[in-house]
Amino acid sequence: MFFHKQELQFQATPDQPDAVYGRKLQEVLGGQYGEITVAMQYMFQGWNMHVPGKYRDLVFGIGSEEFGHVEMLATMIAQLLEKAPLGVTEDAVQADPTVAAVVGGTDVQHAIVAGAGARPVDSMGNPWQGNYVTASGNLLADFTSNANAEMQGRTQVSRLYHMTDDAGVRELLSFLLARDTMHQNQWLAAAAELREQGTEQLPVPSNFPQNSEHTPVSYQYQNFSDGDAASDGPWASGPTPDGNGTFSYHDGPTTSAPMPPPTHPHSRLYGTTNMPDVVEKGAGAVQDKLRRE
Amino acid sequence: MFFHKQELQFQATPDQPDAVYGRKLQEVLGGQYGEITVAMQYMFQGWNMHVPGKYRDLVFGIGSEEFGHVEMLATMIAQLLEKAPLGVTEDAVQADPTVAAVVGGTDVQHAIVAGAGARPVDSMGNPWQGNYVTASGNLLADFTSNANAEMQGRTQVSRLYHMTDDAGVRELLSFLLARDTMHQNQWLAAAAELREQGTEQLPVPSNFPQNSEHTPVSYQYQNFSDGDAASDGPWASGPTPDGNGTFSYHDGPTTSAPMPPPTHPHSRLYGTTNMPDVVEKGAGAVQDKLRRE
Amino acid sequence: MFFHKQELQFQATPDQPDAVYGRKLQEVLGGQYGEITVAMQYMFQGWNMHVPGKYRDLVFGIGSEEFGHVEMLATMIAQLLEKAPLGVTEDAVQADPTVAAVVGGTDVQHAIVAGAGARPVDSMGNPWQGNYVTASGNLLADFTSNANAEMQGRTQVSRLYHMTDDAGVRELLSFLLARDTMHQNQWLAAAAELREQGTEQLPVPSNFPQNSEHTPVSYQYQNFSDGDAASDGPWASGPTPDGNGTFSYHDGPTTSAPMPPPTHPHSRLYGTTNMPDVVEKGAGAVQDKLRRE
Amino acid sequence: MFFHKQELQFQATPDQPDAVYGRKLQEVLGGQYGEITVAMQYMFQGWNMHVPGKYRDLVFGIGSEEFGHVEMLATMIAQLLEKAPLGVTEDAVQADPTVAAVVGGTDVQHAIVAGAGARPVDSMGNPWQGNYVTASGNLLADFTSNANAEMQGRTQVSRLYHMTDDAGVRELLSFLLARDTMHQNQWLAAAAELREQGTEQLPVPSNFPQNSEHTPVSYQYQNFSDGDAASDGPWASGPTPDGNGTFSYHDGPTTSAPMPPPTHPHSRLYGTTNMPDVVEKGAGAVQDKLRRE
Amino acid sequence: MFFHKQELQFQATPDQPDAVYGRKLQEVLGGQYGEITVAMQYMFQGWNMHVPGKYRDLVFGIGSEEFGHVEMLATMIAQLLEKAPLGVTEDAVQADPTVAAVVGGTDVQHAIVAGAGARPVDSMGNPWQGNYVTASGNLLADFTSNANAEMQGRTQVSRLYHMTDDAGVRELLSFLLARDTMHQNQWLAAAAELREQGTEQLPVPSNFPQNSEHTPVSYQYQNFSDGDAASDGPWASGPTPDGNGTFSYHDGPTTSAPMPPPTHPHSRLYGTTNMPDVVEKGAGAVQDKLRRE
Amino acid sequence: MFFHKQELQFQATPDQPDAVYGRKLQEVLGGQYGEITVAMQYMFQGWNMHVPGKYRDLVFGIGSEEFGHVEMLATMIAQLLEKAPLGVTEDAVQADPTVAAVVGGTDVQHAIVAGAGARPVDSMGNPWQGNYVTASGNLLADFTSNANAEMQGRTQVSRLYHMTDDAGVRELLSFLLARDTMHQNQWLAAAAELREQGTEQLPVPSNFPQNSEHTPVSYQYQNFSDGDAASDGPWASGPTPDGNGTFSYHDGPTTSAPMPPPTHPHSRLYGTTNMPDVVEKGAGAVQDKLRRE
Repeated sequence: MFFHKQELQFQATPDQPDAVYGRKLQEVLGGQYGEITVAMQYMFQGWNMHVPGKYRDLVFGIGSEEFGHVEMLATMIAQLLEKAPLGVTEDAVQADPTVAAVVGGTDVQHAIVAGAGARPVDSMGNPWQGNYVTASGNLLADFTSNANAEMQGRTQVSRLYHMTDDAGVRELLSFLLARDTMHQNQWLAAAAELREQGTEQLPVPSNFPQNSEHTPVSYQYQNFSDGDAASDGPWASGPTPDGNGTFSYHDGPTTSAPMPPPTHPHSRLYGTTNMPDVVEKGAGAVQDKLRRE
Repeated sequence: MFFHKQELQFQATPDQPDAVYGRKLQEVLGGQYGEITVAMQYMFQGWNMHVPGKYRDLVFGIGSEEFGHVEMLATMIAQLLEKAPLGVTEDAVQADPTVAAVVGGTDVQHAIVAGAGARPVDSMGNPWQGNYVTASGNLLADFTSNANAEMQGRTQVSRLYHMTDDAGVRELLSFLLARDTMHQNQWLAAAAELREQGTEQLPVPSNFPQNSEHTPVSYQYQNFSDGDAASDGPWASGPTPDGNGTFSYHDGPTTSAPMPPPTHPHSRLYGTTNMPDVVEKGAGAVQDKLRRE
Repeated sequence: MFFHKQELQFQATPDQPDAVYGRKLQEVLGGQYGEITVAMQYMFQGWNMHVPGKYRDLVFGIGSEEFGHVEMLATMIAQLLEKAPLGVTEDAVQADPTVAAVVGGTDVQHAIVAGAGARPVDSMGNPWQGNYVTASGNLLADFTSNANAEMQGRTQVSRLYHMTDDAGVRELLSFLLARDTMHQNQWLAAAAELREQGTEQLPVPSNFPQNSEHTPVSYQYQNFSDGDAASDGPWASGPTPDGNGTFSYHDGPTTSAPMPPPTHPHSRLYGTTNMPDVVEKGAGAVQDKLRRE
Repeated sequence: MFFHKQELQFQATPDQPDAVYGRKLQEVLGGQYGEITVAMQYMFQGWNMHVPGKYRDLVFGIGSEEFGHVEMLATMIAQLLEKAPLGVTEDAVQADPTVAAVVGGTDVQHAIVAGAGARPVDSMGNPWQGNYVTASGNLLADFTSNANAEMQGRTQVSRLYHMTDDAGVRELLSFLLARDTMHQNQWLAAAAELREQGTEQLPVPSNFPQNSEHTPVSYQYQNFSDGDAASDGPWASGPTPDGNGTFSYHDGPTTSAPMPPPTHPHSRLYGTTNMPDVVEKGAGAVQDKLRRE
Repeated sequence: MFFHKQELQFQATPDQPDAVYGRKLQEVLGGQYGEITVAMQYMFQGWNMHVPGKYRDLVFGIGSEEFGHVEMLATMIAQLLEKAPLGVTEDAVQADPTVAAVVGGTDVQHAIVAGAGARPVDSMGNPWQGNYVTASGNLLADFTSNANAEMQGRTQVSRLYHMTDDAGVRELLSFLLARDTMHQNQWLAAAAELREQGTEQLPVPSNFPQNSEHTPVSYQYQNFSDGDAASDGPWASGPTPDGNGTFSYHDGPTTSAPMPPPTHPHSRLYGTTNMPDVVEKGAGAVQDKLRRE
Repeated sequence: MFFHKQELQFQATPDQPDAVYGRKLQEVLGGQYGEITVAMQYMFQGWNMHVPGKYRDLVFGIGSEEFGHVEMLATMIAQLLEKAPLGVTEDAVQADPTVAAVVGGTDVQHAIVAGAGARPVDSMGNPWQGNYVTASGNLLADFTSNANAEMQGRTQVSRLYHMTDDAGVRELLSFLLARDTMHQNQWLAAAAELREQGTEQLPVPSNFPQNSEHTPVSYQYQNFSDGDAASDGPWASGPTPDGNGTFSYHDGPTTSAPMPPPTHPHSRLYGTTNMPDVVEKGAGAVQDKLRRE
């Protein structure tokens, strides 16, 4: 169960409206790596988790905070949109040349659809999608996904930080940056613990019997591009991070197989074939057969 | 430039057709973490990369291999579909009860749309989407994303391994598993090198001046759920993975702010407000004003 | 802010696993009218609302409950999937004929992607989308949208009720049905109050000066189909619900206008035109001109 | 069957081109609540309807008119785009500063993809989607959905009205506003008749045996937010609109249940578990078992 | 304007219900090449067309017929769904083994969402999308697109023909096949006339000054795969269909250029670079600078 | 297998950055008819093809080249974005008025998400989708689809040519135009050969027994619009392109059928019906029955 408190975790008020910036901020609300994604992702990981206790508490604890971040951003965006230019473009532009940028750069659905409100979309107006969520049940994979989400998200907030000089907006961003710092650290710490405990190991999923994979190629770097620095890195020689092997470098593939012959599905799928029966018996014969099917 | 060779990296021929399994295999061809995703993701990372040399060679080298994996899976799926049941359901089911499962479990577009061919969709028929790709320009974030993609992908292939006993299919899966093992190791090795060299560090992006974030909350675990094991983990106390701080544990938020008052956008957006002017001047007055705008 | 409590609002445990039913239940979790939609919709209405007080408290109060419903359904679905058939189809079907239906009727991503977990998708596997949310800022419109969402949702739960005889599942559904009953009533009561108070009236938005619309057709039923019962209803004669007019019935349109002539955009858009300059001056002349642009 | 007449229901010609406005107008052509949605929605309700006669005539009669509205808007947009700026941005902006707003604010696919033509997309360029359509077969739910669609649509047109001062465009909008007024009234009148006749009643679907729902909570307002005005409304006390109960107000939930224990799906799904068998028997034992599956 | 007549162009009644087939038939109603696509595509081509007269009459004439095909298919599907199995799977399967196939193979939203009604989706449940429509303004391109749509559509209907032996369904399909035959012929005839008249020619768009393209490669087949039959076809030697050149065959590219050096966007985008300033001045210096931006 | 070479097929460097143009260029990279589409489409046609030899070599040969075009465009876009304005809008606009257009006209995800990198999206920010790909297995249909794709693509590049005067960009576009010229010609030549050889003929699919279609309407133009020039074209009289018939012209339909009566699905789907049992037995009786189901 979720209980809502009509307070924010941090102040979220701009010094002044800025509809163009409000549109940009949609990215970290409703984008691929926005707050809706992490809130939903961590909660679904919790609901699907197969172990009780501290890991589930962790995803529930952070996931619920993220819903509060969704709220802070939506609240901020609504305030940024409060004085969005609504009237006739030409009039507005002639009165103030900087309005041209505003007119061109807004999310026009903010005004037309939401009446100056925030929306569950990204900065280009694409609706948030359920397939942004990753919750596989394998915690080492999922915590790596979470670390990535916090890294991408903090990178986006960093970029947005320089696109405004509004002190109120920057205040909120500085808070979100700090929380992303925390959460990056948490997911990496949790992933490390999984490996140290041996609960999960590399390669993920570590429980799959590795001798069922085609082991000759398990630690070969087969370079399919012609970059000559390709062999100069810790991914091309030396021990592998999973501790099970040694990297080797190869220019191109080490195995190959002929392409299998083309398939010949039933003629009533009407694909193009060599059609020997047409050649031999004529199209009429095939059509006769198909007509009876 | 890409050059295509009409050979496969590994044999990809099933012992016998199995249309239901062909549909399941679509997941690792055209799903969120399928081969199209990693092929596209690594190439876009290369095209957007800001450093020449070994990192770019690495993404190009692996990305190009992944396009060959797309090819192996598409070829395999087409063969699995070769004898898909096409006729009248009732007849087929009466002849062989196991056909019922096949009829129900196929991707019906395989037959109707593709004529027994593979498609760039996932196992539930959702088309592959460009927003599965992550390429931010920050290599530590992106290599973490790549490691996650290989972990999720290898987990999915592991699951698919047990859903068939076709030796030919398992042969291909064992090859893909081995390559995923390799690529997981490579991205983790590359990410580690970035940190060791100091090219990128935690928290990502490490170049953002951390004293511009709201540092009091940078290392606080604020638990918004009531799980009592929440404080029992390396994410709640001790040094943080970025080396910059110490975790502390808090039950709920450590800061709060009142919700800002509701916004009052222009009345010609026709949102519901307290409408003091309506109350004072009557709806007619507002309408008169709006009629002139 | 949201606080999560690791309890459910109601018991949500099936008597036994049923992966096919788990897939069907996804509709009311992640479908167009599922619980994610209403949770998000009511919260966004609150964040965008222009009036403080009871209406905002209402959307926040119900919206937060709905997130708890998301949780109950996700938890239920994970349990329904716990023993999903994972192995080789043919083997399973021969052991138990009813397995054929199960194999065919599951969401295969439940196993392959989520490892027997719930997902933010509908019953056909389409990801939840942000554009399911309606939050226009006009409360009479939005509460009508909410009433519709609860009606559609309760209808879907009613249908799902008869598709299982699992007592545990039905228990949860009977709870959801009761809550949908409540919420339908609440939105209709709130919408009625808006009208009674005169805060909002019909037609929505009531503040738009109605004499700016083309009033001759404001209350005409223009029937563009040939159904002869069309005029036999309270929508074709008598007073209109908004209290401003009287319905009249018309067979087809009461106004018409000629189609405007085709447009002639610039020739460098390369659309097909009559091209008099081509005819007169020859394609070469046009190409000469375009070559210089 | 549909018969097309090359006339419009009303004049639809702008006084002058305005590509930015043409993009905004796409919202009511191809957006969630645009004319394509209502046209398709009413027709699908007709094709799926289970009763002959006046209700089906009504949805067919209005639905067919809406296809004509699609046509008027597409025609209008093509004219608004007729002189869209196509050339080099910098040149154009220097010649006329207001061009900057135009360049920034257009749908660039209007020129690149459609050659100055209308498209079945919304004002942010998202393609129209079949899931905007609601047609459940329950007429009280569906007519409520229709009323909502006309309310949202008329609100959007009202907003668009103030974003132009082009007399020709406003002429068309004033016509659409009037038709939306009519259709709002019609759907509300039809919904009221359904209830008065007893064909459908509240709660929807009224035929579901209400004593199969968990009646103790059917009329409880359980407030999951802390807003103190929550109990001050006709949704928290007094008789319910469905006539079957009395509202009561509750601070938070009135029932609760413990979260069920985590699920334990088969180990070959490779989710993270407590893995007692690993602990007891070692990973090798599990892997041995899985290798044989 | 569109006028609807409550008659169908052809009988559309199945001999008996078949919910699995109803789902398959959705492909040609709401799929990429279904009737909604062609109806919308031809009408949008008409609304965007720059020439009055016969071409516009042609697209309007066929497009309007296609809306009637949408209607026939929706009507047919609703009837096929009339007796869909709704109850408990296990019970049904035990009573009749063929039910297993039905249960597994249906579109479950048909029952849950639409109450046994048709939906604007394809056979895998993906909603119809506006980006299926092609209307570029260039008639030779668009008529070629139309010919393709009719070819793909007729191929799909042909495949569906063999998946049923219901005489009523086949009757409707035989009608649709005939109309697709007609429309294929019409678009090809219209495209041929455009070329014969010289209104449009190859290569499309023919008005673009061909000497502005890089003519040395305009008629070179550069084969990027290693297939040895590649040069054996009318596309590799002899005159070109546009009449402007002669095909030549080349093994691989005939031109090449070095990849440009990596880009160096502003450091506040936080991408990974060589960071000479970091090396020289230390991360602190960069952070100082960024902190002031 | 694919081998990547770190060279481009042609130079792809702009004279100077232009972020607005970079966004426009996304259309031919990641749009419906962009290079990703043709690359994927031709390769999938090859993987699904049922005939070995020259046709498969052809699709592989061109498809692989198209991946190189994806690379050239991505590389070009990254360079165009290199100096995108990132800072505070108002400051920038006051320093240089033309910046207003740039600010408004960019894809803001280019900066926020990709850090000045290209993305697999179109010019309005919609992600590329797998359903842009057509690969039916019928080569005459598919080569017609390919011809259309090259025509639409070349038209878009032609339009983009005039939207810049950057010599470096135009150089690349002139190369792409030439290659589109080639590929249009190739697909038309290949389609012609299929027909000449009799491998495939009109109507597609030619193997379907045409006497199974409803032949009376196979060559009738039934005009459902009132355009009076409709009969004046080679599509309304004379021999048909497939050589099997003669066109005839008809004003409207030549056949009709009554709409079938409404369907009556099971009452537990809770659709609105005439409900005679309710009328006769009262709602209670129905509810009793449903309660037991």
